[in-house]
Amino acid sequence: MEEPPIIDLQSDEYFMRQALREAYKALAANEVPVGAVMVHEGKIISRAWNQVETLKDATAHAEMLCLTAAQSAIGDWRLDGCTLYVTKEPCPMCAGAIVHCRPTRVVFGCPDAKAGACGGWINLLQSNPPLNHACEISSNVLGDECLHIIQNFFREAREKKKELKAHREYRFDEEN
Amino acid sequence: MEEPPIIDLQSDEYFMRQALREAYKALAANEVPVGAVMVHEGKIISRAWNQVETLKDATAHAEMLCLTAAQSAIGDWRLDGCTLYVTKEPCPMCAGAIVHCRPTRVVFGCPDAKAGACGGWINLLQSNPPLNHACEISSNVLGDECLHIIQNFFREAREKKKELKAHREYRFDEEN
Repeated sequence: MEEPPIIDLQSDEYFMRQALREAYKALAANEVPVGAVMVHEGKIISRAWNQVETLKDATAHAEMLCLTAAQSAIGDWRLDGCTLYVTKEPCPMCAGAIVHCRPTRVVFGCPDAKAGACGGWINLLQSNPPLNHACEISSNVLGDECLHIIQNFFREAREKKKELKAHREYRFDEEN
Repeated sequence: MEEPPIIDLQSDEYFMRQALREAYKALAANEVPVGAVMVHEGKIISRAWNQVETLKDATAHAEMLCLTAAQSAIGDWRLDGCTLYVTKEPCPMCAGAIVHCRPTRVVFGCPDAKAGACGGWINLLQSNPPLNHACEISSNVLGDECLHIIQNFFREAREKKKELKAHREYRFDEEN
């Protein structure tokens, strides 16, 4: 009997770790840390991180950039047989885009009960009909890690804002 | 008293005609004929037509391209004060994208009762909360014209498909 590999290079966890690497790139650029990779026949064909502020484009979510790059790699807008890995449950825009591009499966990290569109708030990935494609969904893959990095980002953003406010008030006091 | 202008260059109908011009560009490229323009302070700042097949990108709807171009023109992803004119009711992807970019108003031509996301099937533009922006909506502006061009496109596509099938069957008969 063969020993099992130490890292399974085809597991959902492995590909979600690759998506998390993208999320860390977003974090380094001071963006909401969400990352995504597209997998076809066991290989990553595109990678992307959230670039809303970097590109000054509110539609530049990790999923959108990853879908567009995957279509470019395949040479077709139909992503049959592909699996999208993304660290956070996609929003309505991204879920709507996924349905248009038709990957077979979507795997996400942390759910978004408030505004997620893959079962959290609504489910656009499995509405078929009226939308003309449905995807398999796997959720909560490395969910805690994926959530942790986002929560940390927002906590630090709030603290920075508080510090800035305190600093401004201090200067105002000094000047008056 | 001044005579009223023959064409009101600030009316919804005027800007929808501009969006229709974009739809005709899509038609000429054999794309589903949908067009859009973004208006800011009475001026068109971006124009786009559906380019799914041209760009081999299922996310390249007229609205998406128009939003991205508008953000580029403004230099910010926030489209406060802007109005998006689009010939057909936006789908969930486009409606989700509109909410992210925050234009003040969305005006569309023909409604899409089956899969529209601005009141037809669902309404993502006025869900606030949970989504963090809401838009004013005006529908059915030149609705008949906007619908007509799309219906014609699909009718012709079906006829072409039938002709092709008949032609193939004829050749098959000849060869056997």
